[in-house]
Amino acid sequence: MKSVDINCDMGESFGAYQLGNDKKILNYISSANIACGYHAGDPATMKKTVRMALEAGVAIGAHPGFPDLIGFGRRNMELSAEEAYDIVVYQIGALQAFVHSEGGVMQHVKPHGAFYNMAATRPALADAIAEAVYRVNPELILYGLAGSELIKAGLKIGLRTAHEVFADRTYQKDGTLTSRNLPNAMITNHEQSISQVVRMVKEGLVLSQQGIDVAITADTICIHGDGVHALKFAGHIHQALTAAQISVLAVGSH
Amino acid sequence: MKSVDINCDMGESFGAYQLGNDKKILNYISSANIACGYHAGDPATMKKTVRMALEAGVAIGAHPGFPDLIGFGRRNMELSAEEAYDIVVYQIGALQAFVHSEGGVMQHVKPHGAFYNMAATRPALADAIAEAVYRVNPELILYGLAGSELIKAGLKIGLRTAHEVFADRTYQKDGTLTSRNLPNAMITNHEQSISQVVRMVKEGLVLSQQGIDVAITADTICIHGDGVHALKFAGHIHQALTAAQISVLAVGSH
Amino acid sequence: MKSVDINCDMGESFGAYQLGNDKKILNYISSANIACGYHAGDPATMKKTVRMALEAGVAIGAHPGFPDLIGFGRRNMELSAEEAYDIVVYQIGALQAFVHSEGGVMQHVKPHGAFYNMAATRPALADAIAEAVYRVNPELILYGLAGSELIKAGLKIGLRTAHEVFADRTYQKDGTLTSRNLPNAMITNHEQSISQVVRMVKEGLVLSQQGIDVAITADTICIHGDGVHALKFAGHIHQALTAAQISVLAVGSH
Amino acid sequence: MKSVDINCDMGESFGAYQLGNDKKILNYISSANIACGYHAGDPATMKKTVRMALEAGVAIGAHPGFPDLIGFGRRNMELSAEEAYDIVVYQIGALQAFVHSEGGVMQHVKPHGAFYNMAATRPALADAIAEAVYRVNPELILYGLAGSELIKAGLKIGLRTAHEVFADRTYQKDGTLTSRNLPNAMITNHEQSISQVVRMVKEGLVLSQQGIDVAITADTICIHGDGVHALKFAGHIHQALTAAQISVLAVGSH
Repeated sequence: MKSVDINCDMGESFGAYQLGNDKKILNYISSANIACGYHAGDPATMKKTVRMALEAGVAIGAHPGFPDLIGFGRRNMELSAEEAYDIVVYQIGALQAFVHSEGGVMQHVKPHGAFYNMAATRPALADAIAEAVYRVNPELILYGLAGSELIKAGLKIGLRTAHEVFADRTYQKDGTLTSRNLPNAMITNHEQSISQVVRMVKEGLVLSQQGIDVAITADTICIHGDGVHALKFAGHIHQALTAAQISVLAVGSH
Repeated sequence: MKSVDINCDMGESFGAYQLGNDKKILNYISSANIACGYHAGDPATMKKTVRMALEAGVAIGAHPGFPDLIGFGRRNMELSAEEAYDIVVYQIGALQAFVHSEGGVMQHVKPHGAFYNMAATRPALADAIAEAVYRVNPELILYGLAGSELIKAGLKIGLRTAHEVFADRTYQKDGTLTSRNLPNAMITNHEQSISQVVRMVKEGLVLSQQGIDVAITADTICIHGDGVHALKFAGHIHQALTAAQISVLAVGSH
Repeated sequence: MKSVDINCDMGESFGAYQLGNDKKILNYISSANIACGYHAGDPATMKKTVRMALEAGVAIGAHPGFPDLIGFGRRNMELSAEEAYDIVVYQIGALQAFVHSEGGVMQHVKPHGAFYNMAATRPALADAIAEAVYRVNPELILYGLAGSELIKAGLKIGLRTAHEVFADRTYQKDGTLTSRNLPNAMITNHEQSISQVVRMVKEGLVLSQQGIDVAITADTICIHGDGVHALKFAGHIHQALTAAQISVLAVGSH
Repeated sequence: MKSVDINCDMGESFGAYQLGNDKKILNYISSANIACGYHAGDPATMKKTVRMALEAGVAIGAHPGFPDLIGFGRRNMELSAEEAYDIVVYQIGALQAFVHSEGGVMQHVKPHGAFYNMAATRPALADAIAEAVYRVNPELILYGLAGSELIKAGLKIGLRTAHEVFADRTYQKDGTLTSRNLPNAMITNHEQSISQVVRMVKEGLVLSQQGIDVAITADTICIHGDGVHALKFAGHIHQALTAAQISVLAVGSH
């Protein structure tokens, strides 16, 4: 039987500010990417989210981002490779202490937002992130955009990696995501979104915007936890995968 | 042969801002308390300081402080016990990742500044800190003011503890430090300071401001790394201890 | 005809985090206390909130707080009087630039949360805040707890002040608020809350928890903008005041 | 008699961290760019620096930077034009309150570091900054790289501008600075540096790296306040200008 991981960003609340639907979303996912206090999250939220994930039996990952709370880590910042290395070590460590103190084990690391996007195309940045993950703990799995520089950097250093695909994004014939600046970047239709995902997992193919099928590796599917339809969509995608004989399992569980 | 630990706060630089004399001070101490980014320090400084300490063979500890960079962690903040627990876990974890990624082992935890002072007298705060240390890693040694609530909290939960004494502070007949608000709180004379320390280690006694000898446990001596005379004083105290047949050894090394 | 001011904290969103019901609450109040980026708020939110207040014809005040975003400015911090002075000047200035660049005029200053509470009882802190307000602009009105040290400090330095009363809090026979640690601190019944307010404005009296009427000056009423019933309560209190022949007017408008 | 302004970044200390030689440098300059708390500086430092500048009779400007304390505002951040507008209004306002509360008047605004460099070449960013300055106070003078997009944006909106030249940088034949990535970007020889500056002011010409004289407007000369030779160099340049019959005067003083 085929299987795939579903991951979702979590623990993005901050102090008095509540964000997301973490408790409910945990019912539909297999891996949680928990914010580490740089782009979102704070120590109290990290502890609470780690506890919820452990209770739900969902695998835990660190979700390091740029030090940009006001911008939610979505604004490009030109950090040197060494600075990128340093902030990844710091953030993984901070989350890891909560995971260990709650009796859990950390499964993976997935960079957040602009950090993730920049690491997908810049080899030096990708190498720095992969090295940070490896040196903190070589058993951690590195999540990155399917086919990206980050995945290559992880493999090169000897990390297990997870190719990530997006349910709500369209693809180009070279396997990259359609830029958000272009009109058809997002898939807003739930049915279309779900069938794209099921096909990526089952057949390893996605129909590009140029009308050509492209090979894609889909180890893990990224879904969003906030927004009005997030919870409903999470349920649908989980159901559709099960109906297609695909089990939802954390990457590290097999 | 008697031994005692000498500890010093380190890694308090921040971004473009340089503070302290870390590289040179490391020659005279056995334990380094490294700032974790809340009251001072940043990821780059943490990595660099961990590397220097490992090279110098000096034991490493986390030095968690209040989230107050402008105040350098020296201003009291009324955190709940749970908030205190959370910021200790976070900061220990962040530093631990640098220690592990550099192949080292963390020896101890010592709270910083106002956090340290408040934990010395408030049992609930002290318990929260001790619990955080214990749950992240029960092998860590908790450094606290000799005879303080923090030491009691550490012992209660089952941590190894280190009673800390100060070379440059005077003591009251109940074994507490003379308040900085009082005129004779500080010992500015180096000779006097050094002989007080040697006696505390050798005889377990200190002459209080009331003229009465008081019993005191001196597992570790706190020295300061900044200021014009810091380096010179560090050398003198190290020399005086050696001359008195007291070896300078990290608490965790025996 | 009698009049009273209704003020509400506003602009407490931060980056991706939304808080409060600012746009709708503005219909029922006469003065907006806008967060300045220390305990909440950010430059974009400040600009947007200033614009909304100007459009609604609601008077604008700065709402300076402690530099404690995670704690939302609700945790006591031991700042020196000079540090308090400095953070008030900074925050007033930041907001003032948005008010001026939008063509408006700033009416008042009201400290936030723990800063407000500490300034109510500590003369040195109160004096520092009053001096900061006065030196930035002596025309600003200082809002403080009715009868508090902050009001006294404002009067002493020559500022116009506004005694603030709370709709949802009970009072002691000495005119102070019942501590939140005591069981009857909050008034949860809307009717009771509204009649207390109307009486404070009309008669200058409030029935204390000891069953004795106490004299109180009610220049401005504080209402809360978040919470499920905030909007409804704002409407009710506005209506009740109008029905009692009391007009709702900003302090500075007469 | 010819005149030119000499400006220097100031007030870059932060909390316990001291940076620069502000008090002494003030003897040799006519305009001080004071950090506003985003890339450096804090309220106490701002107040202190404003006081020193007023005592020294040096004109005061705001020096807004990216919100990146760890990176000292030297790392590019991709802010939207609106976000750039917002952070400029905020930072000017904060400093202006200190200037007004000390009885002074603000003369100018000069963006810091990466913000300055990006504004030199990106019209949308430059327009946003110029608009922010203009809307806070149209009397402020906008300092920018000589001939840059920032100067153009200032002129377009109706601000007075000051073309800035660098004593220690070489120029290209198109009048731009030689990139720091190229070998001859910096002039390390003091004599050469000083004669370049004197010639720029006197003749409006600079010898480019291509051996061709290029026309340049030199309203203000940027010097650095930190580094071991800063103070000495400041003295030399001031002396050389005076010897060449050029008086050192703030841009806004005539």
